[in-house]
Amino acid sequence: MGSYRSPSTGSVVRAVLFDTFGTVVDWRTGIASAVRDFAHRYEIRIDATQFADAWRSRYQPAMHRVRSGQRAFVDLDTLHRENLDAVLRDAGLDPARFAADDVDALARSWRWLPPWPDSVPGISALATAFIVGPLSNGNTALLVDMARYAGLPWDVVLGSDIGRSYKPDPAAYRTPATYLGLEPGEIMLVAAHNGDLAAARSAGLATGFVVRAHEHGPGQLSDLEPEADWDVVAGSMIELAERLDVRSSAAARPERRTRRSDEPRS
Amino acid sequence: MGSYRSPSTGSVVRAVLFDTFGTVVDWRTGIASAVRDFAHRYEIRIDATQFADAWRSRYQPAMHRVRSGQRAFVDLDTLHRENLDAVLRDAGLDPARFAADDVDALARSWRWLPPWPDSVPGISALATAFIVGPLSNGNTALLVDMARYAGLPWDVVLGSDIGRSYKPDPAAYRTPATYLGLEPGEIMLVAAHNGDLAAARSAGLATGFVVRAHEHGPGQLSDLEPEADWDVVAGSMIELAERLDVRSSAAARPERRTRRSDEPRS
Repeated sequence: MGSYRSPSTGSVVRAVLFDTFGTVVDWRTGIASAVRDFAHRYEIRIDATQFADAWRSRYQPAMHRVRSGQRAFVDLDTLHRENLDAVLRDAGLDPARFAADDVDALARSWRWLPPWPDSVPGISALATAFIVGPLSNGNTALLVDMARYAGLPWDVVLGSDIGRSYKPDPAAYRTPATYLGLEPGEIMLVAAHNGDLAAARSAGLATGFVVRAHEHGPGQLSDLEPEADWDVVAGSMIELAERLDVRSSAAARPERRTRRSDEPRS
Repeated sequence: MGSYRSPSTGSVVRAVLFDTFGTVVDWRTGIASAVRDFAHRYEIRIDATQFADAWRSRYQPAMHRVRSGQRAFVDLDTLHRENLDAVLRDAGLDPARFAADDVDALARSWRWLPPWPDSVPGISALATAFIVGPLSNGNTALLVDMARYAGLPWDVVLGSDIGRSYKPDPAAYRTPATYLGLEPGEIMLVAAHNGDLAAARSAGLATGFVVRAHEHGPGQLSDLEPEADWDVVAGSMIELAERLDVRSSAAARPERRTRRSDEPRS
């Protein structure tokens, strides 16, 4: 069990949960690669990275319609698929021109994203002392596939479809506490986005900022620095583990990990 | 991705989910050990194994009151705590005689149970080809702690508190399919209990029987053999992996596992 106490919540942190897109995995590289493969197959000329950025730019507006009650909850797979149709049309491409299976597979490319190089070793180290999992707008099926592909050693995967709410709705941050039997202050959200952390703090969670200066490419202007006094600030997941008093040499997950107070000693 | 097709459902199996108490972990040994420690601390004489059996015998009746609608859903932690009080009273011990924290900790000993020796290597082998997780009456927090203690390499942990239903209610078997984006027939329940498998089959799942001839001790009379034509029958989780065409030499979980049809090749 970790012994790190959050200055902001006053509680010992039991679970460290992670924003995924941009924080744990490099969506821009992964999506651009999938778009490039798709374009190659259909012999169309397209700027794959620009396409990835355009697709991502429809992410928040699409969730906003759910958060604001303009439409009932639908999962992120569905929103990704709808947004893909829109981005194809914006690029002058009629989605009906392509095999539906191919468009569906491209929409599902948000599952097959490369982790940042420090993500797996850093999260593995953290897993020796804390319950680890995603706290993402992804649905459970997407997050399970993402974890298996990227090798993310989650203890628990509770997608946004379980609480049926999207960050930054306070409910989205509080759902994991309910199912983990913890107080919100015993959970730390780790994210590369100041806005995500601000909402998590309002919902009562501890906060950890990991800088991802190239999430949006070389010209990134946002989230280069912490914009509030987050509990922890780190340049990588490995540094985060050190800041939370987890020795990074413990990166390999032992068969049995640090005992909790009520675990038997024998 | 596994290529095993279930004869009973006709579908290729994508996820293999496991009953936990008795099938994956040896609750009787673990609970008796916790009871023995408790009795030692309080200098009381008690047959720890008999106490464990008495505690377990209250498990189905307690859940039945929830399943039948006699009471609203409460999680298994709560039922374990209530049942412990009852078993202590049956043994002539007033629960109020003990520190509440100690009784609470004993009630939580259903988290700290030893896996059967073949469970971790067998499930690890299966995890190379299938999504793996529990399909248990345990609540999420309990199952996450159990997995961290026993070293169970689950991809996903959806406790009974997520669907708010207890096996053998059909809803309990169908909840994982909803969140994994699968058809019930693409999921196999593995259990050491014929009754559990019969209910899973009725709910549309594929079925795997693993014999646990000593779950209830040396004199066990039930579930020594399959009582129907389950899709797969095995003497251990390692043999189960072989029957599902997973080579047991692949026991170590690779960083990236078998690709799915819509994963990128690059």
